[in-house]
Amino acid sequence: MRPTEAPTLRHETWGEHAALIARPGEARDRGLGRVATRILDVATPADPLELDLGGRLERVAVAYEEYGRPNAAGDNTVLVCHALTGSAHAAGVGERDGELGWWDPLIGPGRAIDTDRFHVVCSNVLGGCYGTTGPSSLDPATGRPYATRFPRYTVRDMVAVQKRLLDRLGVRSLRAVVGGSMGGMQVLEWAASFPEMVRSIVPIGVGARHSAWAIGLNEVARRAITSDPAWRGGDYRPDEQPAAGLGLARAVAMLSYRAHGSVEARFGRERFDNGARPTPGAPESFCSGFQIASYLAYQGEKLVRRFDANTYLYLTLAMDEHDVGAGRGEAEAALGRIEMPALVIGIDTDVLYPEGEVRELAAMLPNATYARIASPHGHDAFLIEFDQVSRLLTKFLT
Amino acid sequence: MRPTEAPTLRHETWGEHAALIARPGEARDRGLGRVATRILDVATPADPLELDLGGRLERVAVAYEEYGRPNAAGDNTVLVCHALTGSAHAAGVGERDGELGWWDPLIGPGRAIDTDRFHVVCSNVLGGCYGTTGPSSLDPATGRPYATRFPRYTVRDMVAVQKRLLDRLGVRSLRAVVGGSMGGMQVLEWAASFPEMVRSIVPIGVGARHSAWAIGLNEVARRAITSDPAWRGGDYRPDEQPAAGLGLARAVAMLSYRAHGSVEARFGRERFDNGARPTPGAPESFCSGFQIASYLAYQGEKLVRRFDANTYLYLTLAMDEHDVGAGRGEAEAALGRIEMPALVIGIDTDVLYPEGEVRELAAMLPNATYARIASPHGHDAFLIEFDQVSRLLTKFLT
Repeated sequence: MRPTEAPTLRHETWGEHAALIARPGEARDRGLGRVATRILDVATPADPLELDLGGRLERVAVAYEEYGRPNAAGDNTVLVCHALTGSAHAAGVGERDGELGWWDPLIGPGRAIDTDRFHVVCSNVLGGCYGTTGPSSLDPATGRPYATRFPRYTVRDMVAVQKRLLDRLGVRSLRAVVGGSMGGMQVLEWAASFPEMVRSIVPIGVGARHSAWAIGLNEVARRAITSDPAWRGGDYRPDEQPAAGLGLARAVAMLSYRAHGSVEARFGRERFDNGARPTPGAPESFCSGFQIASYLAYQGEKLVRRFDANTYLYLTLAMDEHDVGAGRGEAEAALGRIEMPALVIGIDTDVLYPEGEVRELAAMLPNATYARIASPHGHDAFLIEFDQVSRLLTKFLT
Repeated sequence: MRPTEAPTLRHETWGEHAALIARPGEARDRGLGRVATRILDVATPADPLELDLGGRLERVAVAYEEYGRPNAAGDNTVLVCHALTGSAHAAGVGERDGELGWWDPLIGPGRAIDTDRFHVVCSNVLGGCYGTTGPSSLDPATGRPYATRFPRYTVRDMVAVQKRLLDRLGVRSLRAVVGGSMGGMQVLEWAASFPEMVRSIVPIGVGARHSAWAIGLNEVARRAITSDPAWRGGDYRPDEQPAAGLGLARAVAMLSYRAHGSVEARFGRERFDNGARPTPGAPESFCSGFQIASYLAYQGEKLVRRFDANTYLYLTLAMDEHDVGAGRGEAEAALGRIEMPALVIGIDTDVLYPEGEVRELAAMLPNATYARIASPHGHDAFLIEFDQVSRLLTKFLT
């Protein structure tokens, strides 16, 4: 199978950070330049993908990017895993849209994940909407989008698809598997599923299993989408997304990705209209008029333009199923067998995956070092505090 | 004006706690027994209420409860202020529905707010839906509910209405004003608006001004309600509330009232169906099947049965306007003039009004003592940790 160009990918960074934050300044830091997302088929009717919860997919295409080159020994590949609304475009300048990848400051020549030394692979997860087969893809059996007819999948299935991709790329050993949030879930599943192939792991801002609080927030997000009449049971037209519901889902998620202090420092009680008190009478829109309201609405609109609502439903369900121990006895037992070196990174202000949960994960891994990102920014710090992440990754990978 | 019986009040505790938690056990602790909510008119066309943001109300009725008796000196009244979805029914057994008040373990003979010593008043806030005039009341001019034609009001207006109530009850001095969350906002406004009348204050789980994060969560809640088609621009029938939207608003609020750890301890990854993994194929409802989802749905349904959606919109806007410094220079200046003794109580796991914000409030009050409730339960701890609150209040009031 020959890699082909991805046809209709839209690339944006997960937050708004990568493009805004200065890269660690080094003279030789020239970045990756233009990069392309490619597509490979990894399942066919003759070789279908059997899914973790039952069911199968007879066609799976995977969108991926590669940076750097495999070495002769075939032991220098680093797999980078993306978070909920991310894509394969982790680094470099997107060939089509000119956008920087979501972890660009960390990946490139001379950077923490040094492409002069490492061969880096990042793929859009199974069930995503950035080129890999998912709910927004056309079902070959009907010619219409799968929508809610897509089978349910888990993080373990995402990893199985990445494994097939690496097989086809000829990668037999992974120097490291690295990722934050939902990316961190994939990291843990890689270590538990293919311990002989993975030589080190870096899970960031993630626990051994999804917590009740995090599931609760995802539940709210899904209900916001499915109770929007424009969702139409999942059969909306791609240009007529359930914008109110998906926007609302994003708004509540954004609050959980940040922290009380950082939102306060950035917005405080600033208003749209230069601080004037609200007008008397009944409030027409019931919007408070504060800048934080405008910011949340803007973040929602941005996501609606770049992400598919059904995909959001499926991916959050997959996150909620995250439990390294499922089907492996207990999490303690499953993690106790993961013997490769691990760098486990927590964020001191993370309210979604609190540091205590991440420390607990580190304590269950026999060969783990725990490190803390100190940041006011909450969970999103792994997409913002590039200097700190860079130092930790550099040290761990050398 | 003669107090009359409130006609159609429904009483439920704010959380689900008061009825479940054992009272501090004392031999003489017999409780208040049956109590009634009464109604008084406090504004008339001849004496209208001019509102903080402009506009006026020509008719305002207030629902209130009284426990204990005023003493001869008239200096033993304690005003208790309720939170967002609370009511005047703070203690005792509701005459009609048999429900215990939302702070019953703290109010009664021999309890922290000892009705053998104190005369206690609690009223439903202006714009509430438990008997006091608000968006769900009939507009005398049209005979229809005010709905979104109700004028916008602030916490300062709530306090102005409570002042009118106390005037009519003959109360000229307040031994203490006590309340948590939105109740704490009223406490601070009482101290800033009527310092000569208030002899001490106990604000709990509240800051000097509403933060961006808290405003953001309220914004999400309001959007959930107003984007529900059943909201109908506010003109729904009382028996056809925007149940999906109000339920969703409550779900996200509940997560912010609790804390990661307490939700995890109570629900963890427990499922509806005894822990079976989900069925294969497409998920029909996109509900995760975890108990936390069921709990949040149940909390939403409970609120829909007892609370009015338009009222929720107005009250959260009033909370968002909370800023003791507004129109008084800065918060520091306004709080610096509040010289009566203050007991400021924060909760160590509160994510909505974090302890740092509450400590900051205490530091700005010249005569304040700060105390911490240690609890896994987050913001709701002031409605759960009755032993701790009881000890703090008892000490402060003696």
